[in-house]
Amino acid sequence: MSVLKEAVIANTEKVEQALLRLIPEGEGREKRLFDAMRYSCLNGGKRLRPFLVMQSAHLFGVNTECSLRVAAAIEMVHSYSLVHDDLPAMDDDDLRRGKPTCHKQFDDATAILAGDALQTLAFEILSEPATHEDPSVRCALVKSLAFNSGCEGMVGGQMVDIAAEGQTLELGEITHLQRLKTGALISFSCEAGAILGKADEPHRHALHSYAHDLGLAFQIADDLLDHEGTEEEMGKKVGKDADAGKATFVSILGAERAREQANILAEQAKRHLDIFEDKANLLQDLAQYVVDRRT
Amino acid sequence: MSVLKEAVIANTEKVEQALLRLIPEGEGREKRLFDAMRYSCLNGGKRLRPFLVMQSAHLFGVNTECSLRVAAAIEMVHSYSLVHDDLPAMDDDDLRRGKPTCHKQFDDATAILAGDALQTLAFEILSEPATHEDPSVRCALVKSLAFNSGCEGMVGGQMVDIAAEGQTLELGEITHLQRLKTGALISFSCEAGAILGKADEPHRHALHSYAHDLGLAFQIADDLLDHEGTEEEMGKKVGKDADAGKATFVSILGAERAREQANILAEQAKRHLDIFEDKANLLQDLAQYVVDRRT
Repeated sequence: MSVLKEAVIANTEKVEQALLRLIPEGEGREKRLFDAMRYSCLNGGKRLRPFLVMQSAHLFGVNTECSLRVAAAIEMVHSYSLVHDDLPAMDDDDLRRGKPTCHKQFDDATAILAGDALQTLAFEILSEPATHEDPSVRCALVKSLAFNSGCEGMVGGQMVDIAAEGQTLELGEITHLQRLKTGALISFSCEAGAILGKADEPHRHALHSYAHDLGLAFQIADDLLDHEGTEEEMGKKVGKDADAGKATFVSILGAERAREQANILAEQAKRHLDIFEDKANLLQDLAQYVVDRRT
Repeated sequence: MSVLKEAVIANTEKVEQALLRLIPEGEGREKRLFDAMRYSCLNGGKRLRPFLVMQSAHLFGVNTECSLRVAAAIEMVHSYSLVHDDLPAMDDDDLRRGKPTCHKQFDDATAILAGDALQTLAFEILSEPATHEDPSVRCALVKSLAFNSGCEGMVGGQMVDIAAEGQTLELGEITHLQRLKTGALISFSCEAGAILGKADEPHRHALHSYAHDLGLAFQIADDLLDHEGTEEEMGKKVGKDADAGKATFVSILGAERAREQANILAEQAKRHLDIFEDKANLLQDLAQYVVDRRT
């Protein structure tokens, strides 16, 4: 097994333990909500965003317990967005990673509330002293997560995605859409390490550039997988975007040029991290993995 | 016009200006999202929660610009909860204060996203230096809003409400449900003033007790209005809870005892504020208004 794969697996285990610990348990009628929150977070994802938080924090020697809380918070926000995205009123998906989506396992109302509560819990965790002793660091984390996940970030991207259905998008427009929809949370994941580590401007900037290129490479690779993968491999429906007449990087560039572009971006992403020398090896390997992966 | 009414109207105007200022404007495909966020917040509500924030902050001489940002944030959270609550998968309401609900005016997907983004924006606002110069105060606001609006507060209450449909609730259970569903945000609104003003324990406690009794009085009065009011007066469907077989304070206590109980709670609420002397007159008047109102 590669060093990266081992590190990702070890990280996933730690993050899932943190998620289990941080989502309340309870008796009574609230239990259904806590169960749905847990179900939505613990669904066998690759935990890319938490891995980015942990690795970027590691560059600055941040205490693992602190970065683990931020990693769990970002995964809660990612999970909430998937739960709401899968709803009948949005993408109407029954399967996610081979398992019933939250509203299929529970019901639509519970899925709406579980998504809402996961978002809230993410901000609660960031605001608590256990995340960082310096309240100005905690405020910076809240501010950045809110900006990147809100109406000028992830949710704005989802709106653009819906509004663009059936329309012809140009490359610039689809890049803008994806920078919001998936890029913003990836940016926060890398920035979080710099915030926790009170990084100086050059190191912060290097991580920011890495995240930018990684996010785009990730999305192009996703479009390629959606184009080439099978439902069995992916654990979800494939070809949905093409079927819905949505523009993707593959529909605009063609598969070959899209793959080339993803590889160029991955290479660029790695070079931004040269400033960290050996400490960023895993993040560099990750950039290559993101474009080479088969699921 | 009573002094309270004048103060409420003046406050509403200021809060609505703040909401307009704080929700982003934009061009392009995101515009629909910003429009839906604005539409959901600016719908002629009474702005009870922002009024509580402004008045409780006033007790400690907090700068108005700071408390106005917190007032806007709490109204965004309240609005997001109404937008999601009105969805077909939840209460399925077409009207709110005589106007089409967000998903009727836009569509279900936009309403889900607008609710999500309003929640996010509330936390972003609280985390910014313009809300308070001391980052530990800002963290305390984020923490308290998250706790009171999340799975152990408002959203938890909504889950309990749904799970209890068609079941016979006892008085203790319905009190627990309402303490979460509506009481928690009212508690935060009053606590916010104490946090902003770095209040000492006795003053904090007095406001906490006031909020507790006010929240319950408010909910009992709401149940009475739902029982006695007309659709025209209320600008929304009435008698829905009774029709759905949901227990309310009125169905358990009967209208007469429910009204008595509301009055006792309002009187108690007022007494908790005696510690503030004349400065809390408006908050005391509000407790009476909450149980006397006709809409």
